[in-house]
Amino acid sequence: MRTVARAHDLRALVDDARAIGSRVGFVPTMGYFHAGHRSLMRAARAENDFVVVSLFVNPLQFGPTEDLSAYPSDLDRDSAAAEAEGVDVLFTPTTEEIYPRPIVTTVHVDGLTNGLCGRSRPTHFDGVTTVVAKLFSMVGPCRAYFGRKDAQQLAVVRRMAEDLDLPVEVIGCPLVREPDGLAMSSRNAYLEPDDRRAAAILSRALHEAAAEVANGERDADSVHRVLTGLIATEPRVQLDYAEVVDAHDLTPVTKITGDVLVAVAANVGRGRLIDNMTVSVGPHSVDVDLGVVARETERV
Amino acid sequence: MRTVARAHDLRALVDDARAIGSRVGFVPTMGYFHAGHRSLMRAARAENDFVVVSLFVNPLQFGPTEDLSAYPSDLDRDSAAAEAEGVDVLFTPTTEEIYPRPIVTTVHVDGLTNGLCGRSRPTHFDGVTTVVAKLFSMVGPCRAYFGRKDAQQLAVVRRMAEDLDLPVEVIGCPLVREPDGLAMSSRNAYLEPDDRRAAAILSRALHEAAAEVANGERDADSVHRVLTGLIATEPRVQLDYAEVVDAHDLTPVTKITGDVLVAVAANVGRGRLIDNMTVSVGPHSVDVDLGVVARETERV
Repeated sequence: MRTVARAHDLRALVDDARAIGSRVGFVPTMGYFHAGHRSLMRAARAENDFVVVSLFVNPLQFGPTEDLSAYPSDLDRDSAAAEAEGVDVLFTPTTEEIYPRPIVTTVHVDGLTNGLCGRSRPTHFDGVTTVVAKLFSMVGPCRAYFGRKDAQQLAVVRRMAEDLDLPVEVIGCPLVREPDGLAMSSRNAYLEPDDRRAAAILSRALHEAAAEVANGERDADSVHRVLTGLIATEPRVQLDYAEVVDAHDLTPVTKITGDVLVAVAANVGRGRLIDNMTVSVGPHSVDVDLGVVARETERV
Repeated sequence: MRTVARAHDLRALVDDARAIGSRVGFVPTMGYFHAGHRSLMRAARAENDFVVVSLFVNPLQFGPTEDLSAYPSDLDRDSAAAEAEGVDVLFTPTTEEIYPRPIVTTVHVDGLTNGLCGRSRPTHFDGVTTVVAKLFSMVGPCRAYFGRKDAQQLAVVRRMAEDLDLPVEVIGCPLVREPDGLAMSSRNAYLEPDDRRAAAILSRALHEAAAEVANGERDADSVHRVLTGLIATEPRVQLDYAEVVDAHDLTPVTKITGDVLVAVAANVGRGRLIDNMTVSVGPHSVDVDLGVVARETERV
């Protein structure tokens, strides 16, 4: 594995790979890898000849009161994890490398960014789409991998790529959970032990809601009540939202039919945590995608 | 020359060219070619192995009261001109091909778009940058060619490409004029004979201002007065703006020093016309770039 901090060096390595016909897979990250990141690298490794992982904590996607300066990092551990997953290039730019002068160009996706996390983080998704557009330009991947834990981010990035005809396939990978169900997140590192235990209520509430839907519940309000009622039993967990939305356009639904995203966000201690599940109601079946639980050996 | 209307076919042709190592030059246009367009094609032909010209009247860059439906077109004549300039692919997509569904993604460049034409055409440059980003994705050029007549567009597109790290060099080419000085524009086709004659006041005013600067005038207000005074003598020409701005960040200047853009816009009959010159004041010299006059054989 090569580790490069300069876009110029990155481009040279990727150009060489492309020149011999390699298909390039790309995993953009903010580092502090957990099993979710590793599952993205593994998917990229399986489906491409050359794998690039970027590690950049992007200031543009943090609000003024958010946790930019506190965001956890451990480059040595991240390098070892990426190497173990067979990554070819780990791109670790500085902020000055990505933004050598103030950026005045914004890539904005309307509509999909209005609700869910966009409501409490109004500048977040512009920061995401702008830096992802830049990273796509720098790397020039055939395929890019995003976790479905960040379901809204995935929908927004995918729509950006389609709208701008970016020659990259945006691939969503399963949400990965801790053994107690908590969705893996670099921000889990912020949690004090009591908060860490309390945070599991989010996935327990989603499981409970999934059971209701599997038993035939189709009323979004009822599912919403199950979620908020359960999460309210845990005073350490301050709910930001619990929503039942169309999985494609992310607008609220009243009836659970077709593909539906059930998403929650909450503040727990110093961390803001999100979780979700996707429900697909067909004429003869109901599929609930709650992601996967990491095997013991995958937890890093 | 191949003419294709589908992005898929365009991509296949360009991919084939790139696969044999061709450098791709790109000229995005709205068609109704004049000598200015042809000079862009000629520059692209001289500097690249494979030349793509797009012809697309982009609805996104027209305001609701602007001349979208009246924009002139003549595909047969345009095809002949592109063929004569040695273009490899003429890309003539429909609106549905470029926007198969409502586009919700916008590429916005802040600051540079606020003044000059951005003031009277507030949504124009978002439409330009968004479609140019899409066309760059579709074509994947090494170099893209824009006329300096649209000086603000050139600055905005160049900044977008830099900010988003698009792997394309944005090249500005000289403004091309009719023998009487009128800047070439597809919109000149709208002009009735009396308006056509009157329109020449714009370039005459710029020439006069250039003479003042060459004679030592460094006060932007004085240059502004020369422009507005002369243009006001022509009642058929309704001035929108005459401005003296920094050539790089397009903010107004009071003193003419360094690189300065002197730009005018006016409504003449049914047409909105723009024109400009660039003045570069060095310690020992003053360069004024007023563009070039097309040779007789170039006027199509």
